Amino acid sequence: MKISDDEIDRLDREDSLASVRKLFHLRDGLIYLDGNSLGPAPKATLREMERVLRSEWADHLIASWNTAGWFRLTDRLGAKIARLIGAEADEVVVCDGTTINLFKALHAALALRPERGAIVAEAGGFPTDLYITEAVRDLRPGLDVRLEGRDGTTIEALIDSDVAVVLANHVDYRSGALRDMAALTQVAREAGALIVWDLCHSAGVLPIALEACGADFAVGCTYKYLNGGPGAPAFIYAARRHHGSIRHPLRGWWGHRDPFAFEQDFQAAPGIRAFLCGTQPILSLRALAPALEIFEQLELRQVRDKSRALTELFIALVEERCTGQGLSLASPREAECRGSQVAFRHAHAHAIVQALIARDVVGDFRAPDLLRFGFSPLYLRYRDVRDAAQSLAEVLESGAWRDPAYARVAAVT
Amino acid sequence: MKISDDEIDRLDREDSLASVRKLFHLRDGLIYLDGNSLGPAPKATLREMERVLRSEWADHLIASWNTAGWFRLTDRLGAKIARLIGAEADEVVVCDGTTINLFKALHAALALRPERGAIVAEAGGFPTDLYITEAVRDLRPGLDVRLEGRDGTTIEALIDSDVAVVLANHVDYRSGALRDMAALTQVAREAGALIVWDLCHSAGVLPIALEACGADFAVGCTYKYLNGGPGAPAFIYAARRHHGSIRHPLRGWWGHRDPFAFEQDFQAAPGIRAFLCGTQPILSLRALAPALEIFEQLELRQVRDKSRALTELFIALVEERCTGQGLSLASPREAECRGSQVAFRHAHAHAIVQALIARDVVGDFRAPDLLRFGFSPLYLRYRDVRDAAQSLAEVLESGAWRDPAYARVAAVT
Repeated sequence: MKISDDEIDRLDREDSLASVRKLFHLRDGLIYLDGNSLGPAPKATLREMERVLRSEWADHLIASWNTAGWFRLTDRLGAKIARLIGAEADEVVVCDGTTINLFKALHAALALRPERGAIVAEAGGFPTDLYITEAVRDLRPGLDVRLEGRDGTTIEALIDSDVAVVLANHVDYRSGALRDMAALTQVAREAGALIVWDLCHSAGVLPIALEACGADFAVGCTYKYLNGGPGAPAFIYAARRHHGSIRHPLRGWWGHRDPFAFEQDFQAAPGIRAFLCGTQPILSLRALAPALEIFEQLELRQVRDKSRALTELFIALVEERCTGQGLSLASPREAECRGSQVAFRHAHAHAIVQALIARDVVGDFRAPDLLRFGFSPLYLRYRDVRDAAQSLAEVLESGAWRDPAYARVAAVT
Repeated sequence: MKISDDEIDRLDREDSLASVRKLFHLRDGLIYLDGNSLGPAPKATLREMERVLRSEWADHLIASWNTAGWFRLTDRLGAKIARLIGAEADEVVVCDGTTINLFKALHAALALRPERGAIVAEAGGFPTDLYITEAVRDLRPGLDVRLEGRDGTTIEALIDSDVAVVLANHVDYRSGALRDMAALTQVAREAGALIVWDLCHSAGVLPIALEACGADFAVGCTYKYLNGGPGAPAFIYAARRHHGSIRHPLRGWWGHRDPFAFEQDFQAAPGIRAFLCGTQPILSLRALAPALEIFEQLELRQVRDKSRALTELFIALVEERCTGQGLSLASPREAECRGSQVAFRHAHAHAIVQALIARDVVGDFRAPDLLRFGFSPLYLRYRDVRDAAQSLAEVLESGAWRDPAYARVAAVT
């Protein structure tokens, strides 16, 4: 397949999401393929945070807990996310981080299946998911953790009538492989197990139907495709049928039925607010609202269609222009089986990613050998995809990546 | 005792901290006695956040994790707090909230005393401390929780050789009662127990000597006297002797020895970083740095001296001017036994607090009958204390608090 510049121009002209790009602050010349790590700043957020800092905090101080609605930000933001993940407005709250929320969700699920002895999770999922699963196991003597990816078993094959809960990533953080949520949820339900979905790499970039699938719990972060700002707080979902029986060990005053009674006895808040714990970082929460409002004008079906087109175009162009350069596709080739990211393997992945960044094409490296590129349909143009593929071809062909400046050093120093 | 306006003027003129006030944004006319709930905005923070949002996030995106030092904010902020609590720079990190950090600290302490069967805590401490203590107990069958304040026992009387850990608030959130940290830590040590200090209401307003006392762990929040912004992340301290054996169940990728190796096996980070968990809310963390820098020019001894003088003056003026109005002091009368807040009891505390707020004298109400006033020596003047006491006298004498507008409604709606 050869894709002409005319064809690319036509795709951009006919892009129904083209006008969304101007809502984001993006430096001229930047091709940002790392929105699956940290989304760019919505211009509205930059304006709004000025008001939050000067008016809500500096001028109105504690009054803002009520007058600016800080106490219910967790719920109001949750309601905005609910629409994106196929949930009702009062089934989601935004609070804490993904790791903490996973801990709560696993405990809540286990409390609903006390007679069962196993958790099923993924050996190759995002490390936090595995660490937390094993930490929960360590708190409950006798509980077994069964991992997909050890001994070649699939997650479905590990689910039986002794399984209390299944924890699965919707989209794999490295390969971008997309699980069939409805099918896996159905397998869990048929075995009488509960399921917890990690939506970090899918929320905001494809339609999700938690409720329609019968999913039990879900968590996800808001700083990737949702553009909530660096390290923005995470969300947590529980199906309504579990509201009223949400129990977890992170009992804090914000999760109390009546926080300002300062009671000595803990009584969990009703509904999804039982997942709240302590006071939340308001500045980071406040930055999330304008980002979520962008989605109110969009249909996720539209976002998904463009996402598929962008990733398909990228794979096609890279394979056309980088033949024989040692790249191999590490993502599913079928668009239906892929989230909104594309990974390629290369022995010198780290240096190549650095050389691309030096050319203002920003993707990221995931050890040991992945080049990972995320495609947010909200601000990427088809011509950005073409130019990124072209830069990759040039970096490989020229050997520019061999520059010692691009050698690997520890990312955290 | 009669205190003349001349005397007040002299105190303000001779106040060695007088110049610090101009570093904060405070509305004209506002007398802010709620810095023990939410500190005001440092002007430097308002400037700095503009740069954080526009340059660090919007312009530089993921590069800021390294170039703006986001990955090590937890440590750099921890080092700044260390100086304020009598710790070494690498014994403190800033992350998550107080509730979450208490959960980690209690687990870490229990892991060091596996053979012991009890936790000692306070029935009347901040509710979160009690809820988390009981949650930890529920995860460990056989563990006993002994509470000061049930059956009239003192915390010291509850500590014996079966106690693994003592959790104590340094300053009581309602009365402002200040515990003798050195003495209680000594009692715990002599019994072979570990101690966890909750410094929420003392950090930044009086000298604290965790290390000199031999304290084991501590947590505290940064949005009160440290002025870090609404819901700013909390800190956690572990004495160096425990570094290397910090274990808790909130295992996340940021607490891994090598986060970017994305390893399947959890290996705790060395030192205090073992208390890290997941990705942190960077905007809220970034707001904290300029606030902590204000303290770099100050000695906490100086802050404490002024704090004592302010609270003593307030008590004296209120007792002088509000005789027979139904107020009774709910804080220790001895300045040595008091933090930087003063509480009075009154049957109509809620309405009186509202009437004061309407006069721009902002304290807060704590159920069922407390008027609570916090005194931050960084921005309060002696004349503010005089004017606050005068407003309280006027509200009581005039009966202005009887206005139906000040009747109690639920704080959270």
